[in-house]
Amino acid sequence: MTLDLFHAQLSSYRETTVARLLSAVPQREPQRYLYAPLTSYLSRSGKAIRPALCVATCRAFGGDPSAALASATAIEMLHNAFLVHDDVEDDSELRRGLPTLHAEHGVPIAVNAGDMLTALSVRILRENLPTLGPTLTGRVYDEFEHMMQESLEGQAMELGWVRDNRLDVTEEDYLRMVLKKTCWYSFIHPCRIGALIGTRGDIDPDRFNRLGSYLGTAFQIQDDLLNLTGEEQRYGKEIGGDLLEGKRTLMLIHLLRHLDARETARVAAYLDQPRAARSIRDTQWILDLMRLRGSLGHALKATRQLAGAALYEFTQAFRDVPESDEKRFLNQVITYMVSRDV
Amino acid sequence: MTLDLFHAQLSSYRETTVARLLSAVPQREPQRYLYAPLTSYLSRSGKAIRPALCVATCRAFGGDPSAALASATAIEMLHNAFLVHDDVEDDSELRRGLPTLHAEHGVPIAVNAGDMLTALSVRILRENLPTLGPTLTGRVYDEFEHMMQESLEGQAMELGWVRDNRLDVTEEDYLRMVLKKTCWYSFIHPCRIGALIGTRGDIDPDRFNRLGSYLGTAFQIQDDLLNLTGEEQRYGKEIGGDLLEGKRTLMLIHLLRHLDARETARVAAYLDQPRAARSIRDTQWILDLMRLRGSLGHALKATRQLAGAALYEFTQAFRDVPESDEKRFLNQVITYMVSRDV
Repeated sequence: MTLDLFHAQLSSYRETTVARLLSAVPQREPQRYLYAPLTSYLSRSGKAIRPALCVATCRAFGGDPSAALASATAIEMLHNAFLVHDDVEDDSELRRGLPTLHAEHGVPIAVNAGDMLTALSVRILRENLPTLGPTLTGRVYDEFEHMMQESLEGQAMELGWVRDNRLDVTEEDYLRMVLKKTCWYSFIHPCRIGALIGTRGDIDPDRFNRLGSYLGTAFQIQDDLLNLTGEEQRYGKEIGGDLLEGKRTLMLIHLLRHLDARETARVAAYLDQPRAARSIRDTQWILDLMRLRGSLGHALKATRQLAGAALYEFTQAFRDVPESDEKRFLNQVITYMVSRDV
Repeated sequence: MTLDLFHAQLSSYRETTVARLLSAVPQREPQRYLYAPLTSYLSRSGKAIRPALCVATCRAFGGDPSAALASATAIEMLHNAFLVHDDVEDDSELRRGLPTLHAEHGVPIAVNAGDMLTALSVRILRENLPTLGPTLTGRVYDEFEHMMQESLEGQAMELGWVRDNRLDVTEEDYLRMVLKKTCWYSFIHPCRIGALIGTRGDIDPDRFNRLGSYLGTAFQIQDDLLNLTGEEQRYGKEIGGDLLEGKRTLMLIHLLRHLDARETARVAAYLDQPRAARSIRDTQWILDLMRLRGSLGHALKATRQLAGAALYEFTQAFRDVPESDEKRFLNQVITYMVSRDV
């Protein structure tokens, strides 16, 4: 599959999903304080990788892609709910190149609007009942439940580490947190749900767990690297935001293990300040140190290894799946997700 | 039914619900940043009126009360999710006599923990599938969906009015907001869901809409009055908190219609300040004015009329229901909810 064809296919999945997302937002009142901000937010086009994974997996396993569309849309709606609340929790300023919802409308309205996105995602999922029947709907529902739980648990870990300014977070802690916060809802469950629907329940969905874990972790580390070293206009978030927010990234954890006592104290003091007190100079100093001590290189190496592992696991998870455009698309997603610069 | 018996029955419903709520919280990690705060929060015993309404209605309509328990618990779990996020949105300090979740653990962890309560409520609802079957489970699910949507819409209206310091909110706006924010999830849907389960779907649940609207509005106005004039220790929230938060209550709307231009400007300026800038002296001045201009009396009269209407609508909604302990309990709930001083 050529790169052009890959992007055309990704765009096509995205268009279908965004249309479905927007049509799920009620047209009624209250517009000004609820639905209009949501419509505007959902129109900001993300990559919509999660619904693409779900629908393509359904098709690759022989299913009718339209059968997976409601579930795929519900996943993307929940993803948007997470983004709105995550940005409140992290006090982020930019999302997809525009002000975050709470930066634009205030925290109270943003928290409430995020709750409505969750409610809408649960509503969309309900559309499965007449089309998939009670047994399969129940299974998809369970997948969705697990997806919510894991993501919120991972988010709790990350938020707690920042709040308590924990300096004792290990790489193992980080990997466990990312598995929860990112891998399940972004990669593992979209594939599991797509395959469950594609085979009408006739598959053990655990076959995607390793693939999704490796791919999700590679993606998250790559995302954290872009946050530090990317171009704001392309990346769509404020560069260095993770440092300003005190996020425990793989790079920060690596750096904390490669500092002398004086440097450790200075980084700890930086992280102990409220966000607004962190200076650009100090942020740049830490970033330079991450370069010097090999923390950026360490993370880059980790993404490459994880991406390699994901490519291998893809051959395992899809071993008995006949070649198709969708299978080739899914294979290419792996390369795309970890080589992207936005 | 004697008052003692009523309270014994209410306590019994509450105990069952709280036990079920607590058993729904996972025992696994992360405890410190997620599940331990939730367990502690859910242990703070509210009145648990909503699950009591749901289970008692199920039984009054001839159903097995255990069939409604999962739905009743899901409603109470969602109620707790709303409380956690509402307190963040309003920046409230006290809830049930203790610090709000965000006052204790910070806004980020509280927003995330509130999301987990929503996820747990949706999970509990899923338990209906094997016991109630797909059709009835689907109907309860739709009720739940509508409940979430109306509540979040009502909350959006209230938050928007405060954010934009709207002085043009009318009594009609207020009543529409309360119907959405309070009546559906607190009164109408608990009865509808209880009756749907009790009759195994053989009822038009719209018969509870008027009862729940009158009762819920009476309850909300009474609650707003207690917020201004109650005793903090009994009420469990900071007294006058609604004024500090700028809430558009029936009393404030009435007062704004009974002020001269100078007074209007002073109240508007008070409401336009950030919460922390509002002085106790000014708050007391507005409260005295509400007394003087009859705003408190107006609201008290409204609750009494609405409670009377609710008592009448009860006889209509339960017209064909044989006498039983549960029917008497439900009748007494109406008197209790609008005569309570806590």
